[in-house]
Amino acid sequence: MLQISQRGQQMPPSPIRKLVPYAEAAKKKGVKVYHLNIGQPDIETPKMVLDAVRNSDFKVLEYSHSAGNESYRKKLVKYYESVGIHVNQNEIIVTTGGSEAILFGFMTCLDAGDEVIIPEPFYANYNGFAVAADVKVVPVTSHIESGFALPPIEEIEKKITAKTKAIVICNPNNPTGYLYSEAEMQQLKEIIVKHNLYLFSDEAYREFCYEGKQFSAGHLTGVEDHVIIMDTISKRYSACGGRIGAFVTKNKSVLDAAMKFAQARLSPPSFAQIAGEAAIDLPADYFDTTKAEYKSRRDLIVKRLNAMEGVFCPNPGGAFYAMAKLPIDDADKFCQWLLESFSYKNETVMLAPATGFYGTPGLGKQEVRLAYVLNTTAINGAMDCLEEALKQYPGRK
Amino acid sequence: MLQISQRGQQMPPSPIRKLVPYAEAAKKKGVKVYHLNIGQPDIETPKMVLDAVRNSDFKVLEYSHSAGNESYRKKLVKYYESVGIHVNQNEIIVTTGGSEAILFGFMTCLDAGDEVIIPEPFYANYNGFAVAADVKVVPVTSHIESGFALPPIEEIEKKITAKTKAIVICNPNNPTGYLYSEAEMQQLKEIIVKHNLYLFSDEAYREFCYEGKQFSAGHLTGVEDHVIIMDTISKRYSACGGRIGAFVTKNKSVLDAAMKFAQARLSPPSFAQIAGEAAIDLPADYFDTTKAEYKSRRDLIVKRLNAMEGVFCPNPGGAFYAMAKLPIDDADKFCQWLLESFSYKNETVMLAPATGFYGTPGLGKQEVRLAYVLNTTAINGAMDCLEEALKQYPGRK
Repeated sequence: MLQISQRGQQMPPSPIRKLVPYAEAAKKKGVKVYHLNIGQPDIETPKMVLDAVRNSDFKVLEYSHSAGNESYRKKLVKYYESVGIHVNQNEIIVTTGGSEAILFGFMTCLDAGDEVIIPEPFYANYNGFAVAADVKVVPVTSHIESGFALPPIEEIEKKITAKTKAIVICNPNNPTGYLYSEAEMQQLKEIIVKHNLYLFSDEAYREFCYEGKQFSAGHLTGVEDHVIIMDTISKRYSACGGRIGAFVTKNKSVLDAAMKFAQARLSPPSFAQIAGEAAIDLPADYFDTTKAEYKSRRDLIVKRLNAMEGVFCPNPGGAFYAMAKLPIDDADKFCQWLLESFSYKNETVMLAPATGFYGTPGLGKQEVRLAYVLNTTAINGAMDCLEEALKQYPGRK
Repeated sequence: MLQISQRGQQMPPSPIRKLVPYAEAAKKKGVKVYHLNIGQPDIETPKMVLDAVRNSDFKVLEYSHSAGNESYRKKLVKYYESVGIHVNQNEIIVTTGGSEAILFGFMTCLDAGDEVIIPEPFYANYNGFAVAADVKVVPVTSHIESGFALPPIEEIEKKITAKTKAIVICNPNNPTGYLYSEAEMQQLKEIIVKHNLYLFSDEAYREFCYEGKQFSAGHLTGVEDHVIIMDTISKRYSACGGRIGAFVTKNKSVLDAAMKFAQARLSPPSFAQIAGEAAIDLPADYFDTTKAEYKSRRDLIVKRLNAMEGVFCPNPGGAFYAMAKLPIDDADKFCQWLLESFSYKNETVMLAPATGFYGTPGLGKQEVRLAYVLNTTAINGAMDCLEEALKQYPGRK
């Protein structure tokens, strides 16, 4: 009998996508489903970004350089300069989505059995890349009561062992929306220096900060060799399908090793590199409009949630996610029930149970993540459903 | 002191790309370099394939399904049907290049320390994916004298241990151009049944067969659970930069596990899926023209090589590579010398030393791989250079 591998068995299914069959069944019954479950923005990809691809006139769809087109990397240098991160074109490897940047980081800096500390709740796919790289994720819990701020340094240090090689943060955070303060980033700097760790900083949502600006890991001084920025154009320009990201570090040994992984997979996608390159030339006010839209959605969803009896939603400083604590017995059951057994005016809402974002079993059972990737009218419709659902749900606490 | 991982250190650099700095230096001196070193075809990507992307009119560049767009997978079912491989749309996962299909195979079917047997010389990047998956590559040597036919079954069986989980073949073969016969495929079937192994079949060059047709691993009957086809549009439609491939198997457990890896990286690139889907509608005679072009190149390069004193080049049955044995001391030195110290009429040729394609140290020192991805005029120019170089090379044997 042929067997699949242990890691194939251990690989977690996507917690965000596991409810999809229930949503499909609801739609078949004619129920409208508001999708607040995944981070696929409804914002249009800027026309000039798509047009750059549509107007391209090459004759052969060739491999690009394994690190990405030089012309694109030169543009990225300008982009990073504009956000106060000083790198040159050889310190950037263009990746196939932010996903590949994360995988390259794990593969390059950690060996099988090594440990990576991640504040939980965290982006669930980190688990998948950890299984692929045979790395152990060690969660350190952040709490909804404090808005998911960085856990106290002592809590993080308690988790450090001889096997710990890196800390991963996502800033602003998916799934919590938390924006790390400069003081918190300086605390992280102290830890990585003291314990000789890498800091992997997933900055997919850099531009989407609603209370102040992002303090990037790339702004930390004196720890350039420790810091790897994992980046992507997916959310920044609403270009998720492009699958273009970046692996950015000033650590030469890490770059050299990561380049070998990059060469093995030959090159990142060519079409979307054209899109990414064009995006750098978007007018300076491009993010203003998008940010204003997301901010109005955030303000609405947070207000609506906190107005519901027994619901608590801290105000997220960035990204386009909110985490809410609900008066329910079990978020997984509740989210399934919303799709399977509930509708209000023939509509319902799809949410992501928070359990999939925690590494510690049992946590997040009363929490859900809401991606505010729909317009305010839709958000109001979704919140009407949720409010009514919480009244009807048999497992209400 | 921060360290990179062991696997980062073990990761082999690309043997095909390591001579690039010497080629760049030659070009700076004004020397024209014929690139027979990499499999980047000069054939134009079909206009209708590129136009499908250019004429696309979506507004949001969204994530696709993690297994690839359903519309594309349905088209792929038709394509596979046309080459005698019967699968349904749920037995296909669209991947980011053939590269990702190989990685998914290793990750899904093998654990750290497991072994995979590969006839050598083999596509060098298998080494890279093996390091990423912490899998041991066990080479079994094929020989230039027999045109790189499948090694005798006994030789393969000698290599099988309790850790052996799979055999990888590339058919038609990169780097040798060898096309496995139906009889050889049936021998492989016997081995995988007898020893309960997976057969990973890299069929990137399926259409490019000049002596008869490909007998696909997908044509083997009764071993459907053992067979995984790793595929790509890169060479088929000269669309290397698209980064679209496919992982094809009828083994449900393998599919389920591979889907979890696919979900972790979210989706394959969206633009090039449009290209891949359009390519299925190319006229039936599309490959005739391309094949005729490659065949005339093959005929020329093989004739020119065998006409040189001391050179032997078996006639490759498929793909667009030829391996030649040269009267030289060391292929790595020779290929570097061609770029660094030689020119003929201000031109030279870049070849891939075969050493990088062998897993057994010391093999391939007198062999080079030639990719016939240039037109016949350029091939004649390149062969003139090689002929002259072999007369002048100080390490001639």
